[in-house]
Amino acid sequence: MSSRATPYIAVCGPGHAGASERDLARRVGALLARRGAVVVCGGLGGVMAACAEGATSAGGTVLGLLPGDDRGAGDPHLTVVVATGLGELRNGLLVTTCDALVAIGGGWGTLSEVALALRAGKPVAVLRGWELPEAAGETHRPLRVGTPEQAVEAVLGGAEPLP
Amino acid sequence: MSSRATPYIAVCGPGHAGASERDLARRVGALLARRGAVVVCGGLGGVMAACAEGATSAGGTVLGLLPGDDRGAGDPHLTVVVATGLGELRNGLLVTTCDALVAIGGGWGTLSEVALALRAGKPVAVLRGWELPEAAGETHRPLRVGTPEQAVEAVLGGAEPLP
Amino acid sequence: MSSRATPYIAVCGPGHAGASERDLARRVGALLARRGAVVVCGGLGGVMAACAEGATSAGGTVLGLLPGDDRGAGDPHLTVVVATGLGELRNGLLVTTCDALVAIGGGWGTLSEVALALRAGKPVAVLRGWELPEAAGETHRPLRVGTPEQAVEAVLGGAEPLP
Amino acid sequence: MSSRATPYIAVCGPGHAGASERDLARRVGALLARRGAVVVCGGLGGVMAACAEGATSAGGTVLGLLPGDDRGAGDPHLTVVVATGLGELRNGLLVTTCDALVAIGGGWGTLSEVALALRAGKPVAVLRGWELPEAAGETHRPLRVGTPEQAVEAVLGGAEPLP
Repeated sequence: MSSRATPYIAVCGPGHAGASERDLARRVGALLARRGAVVVCGGLGGVMAACAEGATSAGGTVLGLLPGDDRGAGDPHLTVVVATGLGELRNGLLVTTCDALVAIGGGWGTLSEVALALRAGKPVAVLRGWELPEAAGETHRPLRVGTPEQAVEAVLGGAEPLP
Repeated sequence: MSSRATPYIAVCGPGHAGASERDLARRVGALLARRGAVVVCGGLGGVMAACAEGATSAGGTVLGLLPGDDRGAGDPHLTVVVATGLGELRNGLLVTTCDALVAIGGGWGTLSEVALALRAGKPVAVLRGWELPEAAGETHRPLRVGTPEQAVEAVLGGAEPLP
Repeated sequence: MSSRATPYIAVCGPGHAGASERDLARRVGALLARRGAVVVCGGLGGVMAACAEGATSAGGTVLGLLPGDDRGAGDPHLTVVVATGLGELRNGLLVTTCDALVAIGGGWGTLSEVALALRAGKPVAVLRGWELPEAAGETHRPLRVGTPEQAVEAVLGGAEPLP
Repeated sequence: MSSRATPYIAVCGPGHAGASERDLARRVGALLARRGAVVVCGGLGGVMAACAEGATSAGGTVLGLLPGDDRGAGDPHLTVVVATGLGELRNGLLVTTCDALVAIGGGWGTLSEVALALRAGKPVAVLRGWELPEAAGETHRPLRVGTPEQAVEAVLGGAEPLP
């Protein structure tokens, strides 16, 4: 059972992802699990399935928040599945329940999660994907990182993200 | 990791509950865990905390869906916590993600969960609490049961609820 | 444009309703509109369509909160339509945004709205339908009324509900 | 009462906005109202209040979707207010219920709405603000426009957005 101090880290990325993004996601999932974090994801394929596989292969716990109302649509590596029935509003639920977020790869859905997390003042590490321009009036920024190790350090603390 | 066939059973009841209701909830939670079900609850005190304690003491998994956006408000026996930030709309989320529901004790919040589950056509076992009158135009009804064992049989199948 | 003091009153009831319930709903809608209230409903047929027709025929404003994501599914008498895409969670949204609720007729969906409104401490007038038993530990109760006029007085103030 | 063919156009932008953004929002709101569209906004200050003022000054209808559960927090120019209690998840509700979106100014909240609308395949006109890089794997793009007239033409059809 997770203690109150267990960090919950969301890993976001598209459901259709290339092999290199899926590999990055698997490594991020495994590293997060080894650091004792619960991995939160959207529960479907691509980056979501890869981070779940990585985390559970390292003995970790993965919470999947599905857009639909059928739990059976979830990736088999999820530890616990929530069939939200909220459609893309589940992206906001994922942001609300996590402490920080790692984004891997592009896509509008991923961008919505990055933006909502920044809006909520939560740390966001971008491993590969969105290079956002300066936002007028916003001081909180995503951290661009180059490796899974740097991504995990960035969201769990003690790291120096790339400038 | 839970297989796709793992049943998710919600246990609902008030956050302020008497000792006998908490005892029933603990026994329901333990029985569900022994049958391999994931227990879903609202994540706070009273019936919610008691079913979580029962389930985890039997080695089970408990998913807590909190109304607020602070995971730290969750009962310490929860395995995985979702801080929904949805307020009482999280009652609907709990119904969406479960296969069936056990209600223990009264209260308007519990009644809303019973009604939403019946609306969704999911089995509802009422162990102690709401005795609902006939609903015009509704054929789907809650099952009144007398013991934790009957409640669990009613939602996991193979049981004969009390007439 | 509605002033901040404009009351928002939800009218709830089944989408499949008999002629007498639809007639009651139409009269409640018209009376609410004449009193300057915005009528909030679930936006579909039966009691929902009837209260919308009554309110707009009296020059009032009706806000419809649909479960689906297609605005075109809304009853044509709605003034403003929100396609929530939330499924039955939109029942909770309806309760959150209203000041009080009138329930006409039975059905589990209606009961969920009654329960959520009582949970939120908002006045509920039951014109025909759910006769709820005493709820242990709950002092806030629905008001049973016998006519549309009494229902509107009960939720807009100054009325004596039937004992 | 709005017909089924009435377009619903969301106007998004930060609650703290400069005078030039507020002026653009007012003009967009007025133009949308003259074209018969219902304006949907987040219901608070800055760009949201300015587009509401513009639309109602032109005789239009404005639907405000507030993040909190207090209708009284809404801008006084709103025609109809929904107090969602959903926090930033109301950004997703705004996207679900609109046909197209005009973004004015930066900010992470605005970006989340732009991304969710693009994700849903709805037209997005960016009048001033986010210049998004190419998204890998996404063909649907926001339309960059230079004037309120171009923004309204872009979302209501018949327009040639700037290249």
